Amino acid sequence: MPSGEATAAISDSLAHPTSAPLVLSQHHDDGKHHLLLAASGSVATIKIPNIAEALAKHENLSIRIILTRSASEFLQGQSGEQPSLESLSKFPNVDGIYLDEDEWSEPWVRGGKILHIELRRWAHLLVVAPLSANSLAKIVGGLSDNLLLSVIRAWDTTGILDLPYYHSPSDPSASKDDVVANGTPADQVQPRKKIIIVAPAMNTAMWKHPVTKQHMKFLEGEWNVQNGGWFEVLRPIEKELACGDTGDGAMRNWKEIVEQIERSTKLSDARAEGS
Amino acid sequence: MPSGEATAAISDSLAHPTSAPLVLSQHHDDGKHHLLLAASGSVATIKIPNIAEALAKHENLSIRIILTRSASEFLQGQSGEQPSLESLSKFPNVDGIYLDEDEWSEPWVRGGKILHIELRRWAHLLVVAPLSANSLAKIVGGLSDNLLLSVIRAWDTTGILDLPYYHSPSDPSASKDDVVANGTPADQVQPRKKIIIVAPAMNTAMWKHPVTKQHMKFLEGEWNVQNGGWFEVLRPIEKELACGDTGDGAMRNWKEIVEQIERSTKLSDARAEGS
Amino acid sequence: MPSGEATAAISDSLAHPTSAPLVLSQHHDDGKHHLLLAASGSVATIKIPNIAEALAKHENLSIRIILTRSASEFLQGQSGEQPSLESLSKFPNVDGIYLDEDEWSEPWVRGGKILHIELRRWAHLLVVAPLSANSLAKIVGGLSDNLLLSVIRAWDTTGILDLPYYHSPSDPSASKDDVVANGTPADQVQPRKKIIIVAPAMNTAMWKHPVTKQHMKFLEGEWNVQNGGWFEVLRPIEKELACGDTGDGAMRNWKEIVEQIERSTKLSDARAEGS
Ligand SMILES: Cc1cc2nc3c(=O)[nH]c(=O)nc-3n(C[C@H](O)[C@H](O)[C@H](O)COP(=O)(O)O)c2cc1C
Ligand SMILES: Cc1cc2nc3c(=O)[nH]c(=O)nc-3n(C[C@H](O)[C@H](O)[C@H](O)COP(=O)(O)O)c2cc1C
Ligand SMILES: Cc1cc2nc3c(=O)[nH]c(=O)nc-3n(C[C@H](O)[C@H](O)[C@H](O)COP(=O)(O)O)c2cc1C
Repeated sequence: MPSGEATAAISDSLAHPTSAPLVLSQHHDDGKHHLLLAASGSVATIKIPNIAEALAKHENLSIRIILTRSASEFLQGQSGEQPSLESLSKFPNVDGIYLDEDEWSEPWVRGGKILHIELRRWAHLLVVAPLSANSLAKIVGGLSDNLLLSVIRAWDTTGILDLPYYHSPSDPSASKDDVVANGTPADQVQPRKKIIIVAPAMNTAMWKHPVTKQHMKFLEGEWNVQNGGWFEVLRPIEKELACGDTGDGAMRNWKEIVEQIERSTKLSDARAEGS
Repeated sequence: MPSGEATAAISDSLAHPTSAPLVLSQHHDDGKHHLLLAASGSVATIKIPNIAEALAKHENLSIRIILTRSASEFLQGQSGEQPSLESLSKFPNVDGIYLDEDEWSEPWVRGGKILHIELRRWAHLLVVAPLSANSLAKIVGGLSDNLLLSVIRAWDTTGILDLPYYHSPSDPSASKDDVVANGTPADQVQPRKKIIIVAPAMNTAMWKHPVTKQHMKFLEGEWNVQNGGWFEVLRPIEKELACGDTGDGAMRNWKEIVEQIERSTKLSDARAEGS
Repeated sequence: MPSGEATAAISDSLAHPTSAPLVLSQHHDDGKHHLLLAASGSVATIKIPNIAEALAKHENLSIRIILTRSASEFLQGQSGEQPSLESLSKFPNVDGIYLDEDEWSEPWVRGGKILHIELRRWAHLLVVAPLSANSLAKIVGGLSDNLLLSVIRAWDTTGILDLPYYHSPSDPSASKDDVVANGTPADQVQPRKKIIIVAPAMNTAMWKHPVTKQHMKFLEGEWNVQNGGWFEVLRPIEKELACGDTGDGAMRNWKEIVEQIERSTKLSDARAEGS
């Protein structure tokens, strides 16, 4: 089966429900947390359904999923734990699934929306789980030759551009001019960057390759939230990998990723408050 | 509409008129200035028709256009200001339009011409307007996974290889052995590099991303004409962008780009002289 | 002819004989030297048939070939020296030919083999001849957006992961626990990395571009066998190139590459012993 064609077909059917152009302004007042959940071409992509299912209970969470072409190969309905992409959209809070073709699904004309920009603006949080070796390299190199990488390349690393759009989901009526995330008047607030959480996952040899360390130096150094940046890294763990090697490089357990998402969006607090 | 197919179809029809293999030696005596005009996948690609139209008045200018796959998406005839690629070839001095497929349109055999090398040799000047964030990254990284990037990777950064082919368009009979651009005997001339002018164009957040600065350090530093290199940069300007953001990152006004082309090829002088 | 389609068709027919999933454990006791022979998109790819033919005499050598998409364009049966890929598989010791599509030819399910990992494990030696400018850049940047680059990104740069699998081909009965390449008990042996030999081949201007030097600094420096790394470089030579330029950048003569392979696998010794 020529996989390219299959992917295109699936994408078409997926794209239709979401193909009404996504315009942030129609969504930023929906009072919900906006999670952009992405996967690149690692076997750990098969954990995306688990993550989505675990988050399904949060009514005030809206999820949009981006898959690279390679990642989409893992969710073709080939087994019980690898449902098709369509089936993912059955989770009540999964509001869209995006593949590369969707960037160009309509010929762009002046005034037309640009998908990777709209998704970036819409998102309060981007989680890339798994992050492949290849996508890691491209992020650090500043390449953006697919949809996911374009969102990441266009991320607001300054904390200025997207800030006015961010507001407390619990207070949807708040004007973007005077209120920010925690209710403080905008002119008294330090720029607060939206963050990207990544969970690298790769074969042990890939992980041990010296080039990985070079790349991680960006995501864990200058570009890290701890240093005023916008990346947070969930380092891989040691276990028996899909390829048969035992060693470092496996993606963090998906439950930890869910917990991290809940912490970052403050959904865990919300739950504690009984919502 | 699967855009890949549409692109291929257009390319086929475009390729035919120009598909007689391009051989530099048949052209370097045509007495014309040779402009290679390229666009990568930014919305500002829609200014290519304006640029081509403004240059149409120069009879001694031959233009060949290269588009990346993403750039070609912006010129599909979807609106008045976004004519189809075919329509571009109606300008009298547009002598060819090239897409990635054209590199491989004929199976290569020994002695066959190599398109990106022939285009590099043919060109007196390469202008990339707009230059996308992605193509910027790939240029700096030395990647060449499409036609435009292969031309740029194969650019004569030494000023030695292509010099003998360059000669004064006003003196087509001059032998390449004893005459160079300004009529000075070759052994009295400093190597003069052919240059690449780039006009980056991207979303403000992409432009403000720290990786952009890393990349610009090459094009504005070591590789810049001012430092003996071969790149000239037309920095973006501030304005309201297609994506709705207001800020830095917009491509320089196309009229400035036209002026820069006329200055660099000395077409502005020629005009002054009444040609 | 849309080359993409042709490539896919050829790949399908090639894939079938080898599409029984490649599992290292079924092969590492075959008593043979395992050569992974790869080509990226340079004209010098047309020397692959010469190399394969010259190695055909070694009965205890098993060869598997990987081609990038661009490389495959050079072996489409368009001339006597450019036979089709199918014809390569007629050499008795060519045991497989792999294209990008083969990574995804079967939908992956848990327990499924991962082609680039299996090929890496299977290989005692990887030779990339020719290595294109583009693939050079991607290797150094840590990108792995095709099969060949994934094998290289997953190479065991530590010398620990793959060591136990390596053993003397002349002693297939030896247990991987107590015997390594030269018959020395495992606990007395220094980790010995499997190496990658690359033979860059490119247009002179590409070779002279300053970015090439930046890249070669990795393959000839920190990552070089001489410094405890895993790369060995066969530098290009000066001659008239396919593009018509005369200068540096041409791939080393294929006979030298064959000799280097024989030296590295100790096949030359074997021959001396009369096998
Ligand atoms: C079955 C299979 C499993 C793979 N698993 C991984 C993995 O766990 N991590 C990784 O970095 N690459 C893995 N790869 C390789 C990537 O899919 C490949 O490098 C691809 O080009 C990545 O593309 P992307 O980064 O655009 O998603 C795998 C490939 C296959 C065929
Ligand atoms: C409608 C639309 C507009 C885009 N505008 C830009 C832009 O102005 N600048 C930019 O760097 N990328 C822009 N992109 C993203 C690039 O097209 C994308 O990164 C692509 O991979 C670039 O490929 P290229 O560099 O090979 O042309 C845009 C994408 C879309 C869909
Ligand atoms: C006819 C032809 C010959 C080429 N020869 C070379 C070459 O010798 N060296 C090189 O680096 N690139 C060469 N290229 C350009 C590469 O094929 C191109 O950069 C491609 O994207 C490389 O892809 P790969 O590295 O994935 O194989 C050639 C292209 C064509 C069309």
